[in-house]
Amino acid sequence: MSAPAARRPESEPATGWDRSDPVAVRRAIRAGAHRGQTGTLAPGHVQANLAILPRDYAEEFARFCQRNPKPCPLLEMSEPGDPRLPGLGSNLDVRTDLPSYRVFRDGERMEDVPDITDLWRDDLVAFALGCSYSFEEALIDAGLRLAHWDDPSLVVPMYLTGIECEPAGRFRGRMVVSMRPFAPAEAIKAIQITSRYPRVHGAPVHIGKPELIGIEDVTQAWQGDDPAIGPGELPLFWACGVTPQSVVAAARPPLCITHTPAHMLVTDVRNAALAVG
Amino acid sequence: MSAPAARRPESEPATGWDRSDPVAVRRAIRAGAHRGQTGTLAPGHVQANLAILPRDYAEEFARFCQRNPKPCPLLEMSEPGDPRLPGLGSNLDVRTDLPSYRVFRDGERMEDVPDITDLWRDDLVAFALGCSYSFEEALIDAGLRLAHWDDPSLVVPMYLTGIECEPAGRFRGRMVVSMRPFAPAEAIKAIQITSRYPRVHGAPVHIGKPELIGIEDVTQAWQGDDPAIGPGELPLFWACGVTPQSVVAAARPPLCITHTPAHMLVTDVRNAALAVG
Repeated sequence: MSAPAARRPESEPATGWDRSDPVAVRRAIRAGAHRGQTGTLAPGHVQANLAILPRDYAEEFARFCQRNPKPCPLLEMSEPGDPRLPGLGSNLDVRTDLPSYRVFRDGERMEDVPDITDLWRDDLVAFALGCSYSFEEALIDAGLRLAHWDDPSLVVPMYLTGIECEPAGRFRGRMVVSMRPFAPAEAIKAIQITSRYPRVHGAPVHIGKPELIGIEDVTQAWQGDDPAIGPGELPLFWACGVTPQSVVAAARPPLCITHTPAHMLVTDVRNAALAVG
Repeated sequence: MSAPAARRPESEPATGWDRSDPVAVRRAIRAGAHRGQTGTLAPGHVQANLAILPRDYAEEFARFCQRNPKPCPLLEMSEPGDPRLPGLGSNLDVRTDLPSYRVFRDGERMEDVPDITDLWRDDLVAFALGCSYSFEEALIDAGLRLAHWDDPSLVVPMYLTGIECEPAGRFRGRMVVSMRPFAPAEAIKAIQITSRYPRVHGAPVHIGKPELIGIEDVTQAWQGDDPAIGPGELPLFWACGVTPQSVVAAARPPLCITHTPAHMLVTDVRNAALAVG
């Protein structure tokens, strides 16, 4: 079905591509046909956080992920200098297949760029980390509601906790959590569902009583939008992918490249394929 | 190893029997060598609640169990007049193999008896229902603490909730829950563990906020001992096997026979064999 060019939304490329197919999505991104957020693309497929570090830091960061699987669920890491992640997608190239990258030098945020081919080096190692999109889809499929899915202009509230991650080498820092409120029976269901997804943050790390993990006022988000928590709801806290980002920034490696928030690596892996139990 | 008779504790029968073996336990009970509680016997094996009803009520009660699997997790029901439950134990006879039975006539509690051979009739149907002992063992094995395991003189606190069970025929009533308090991270673990045991009450039905299920003061138990809930703990509520007992009593069948509380049917089924996922 084709429509007159004048009626085509601006975000739609001139040439059609299949937004439900992760291979087509990556191809469109690589061709510069999509520069926006990835949240609605290739539904049902895992989207990953990206972190690229020099080899000198890679072993320590792998160890940090291994010791902190809830905030840092490592899906795959590349060979040094190899931009492919074959476990996550055939024909996947981390240098070109994300719509936007964020570059850090010595821990300082520099520019966002649409392609990192020019920055790629033989000593860089790419880490793909699981993201809450996957378990949120499972929650929605089970009939639970999420405020930031009902209103996509909202960003899930995040908090810096007092929970120290297990350090590894130069990587250390406190855990960042995201929060989703539920009525008690739904909270139990949300724990059951997300427990089945250990590779994308898994079960919550905390429920109720925010003060016990160093959150003084749960109504004030540290990042994201302030939440509305009903009087019959409990706050559930999940380890958040912002944790490794802040930990890496604090380690001040000479170069680090991540995805731009909400501009993720779209993979061929189905969310359902990550479920255990 | 034998000890002088004078040193043998009173509860120990003159002839030794293996307290770890469910078949030996049932044989000892049948022989009148054990009349006490069963909690410490045959560890690792499922102990079941018993309810015996006339056939005229059995179909409705089976439907009640099917509609309310959390308070009434039906492990096995017998053929009318057949006192065996072959799925729960070879050589198992529900007329003789429990240390104490409680008899109800027209819903009124009558006497407790050590044997119901004389009361057995061709139209009686036996129901064995899962019991929280099984999931509590799994919680303890995972390193969680339970006050009534630390102090066996305590009985788990129970509450009559405002949650109406799904009625079936003459059986209807509100759900009774048991409560165990945990710190948040342990509460999440307890939900994960008990979710794996749907045949013995399964996951909690509620967490936090007792007032939402009609419990006005959680510090005052309706049955059992009043709980101690620490300031850093959340109350978790599980559907309780007292529910079918009160529902059956309210239906006032001409005859109903149950186990005496804490005097359970010891089965050959291993608790671990009930785990799913």
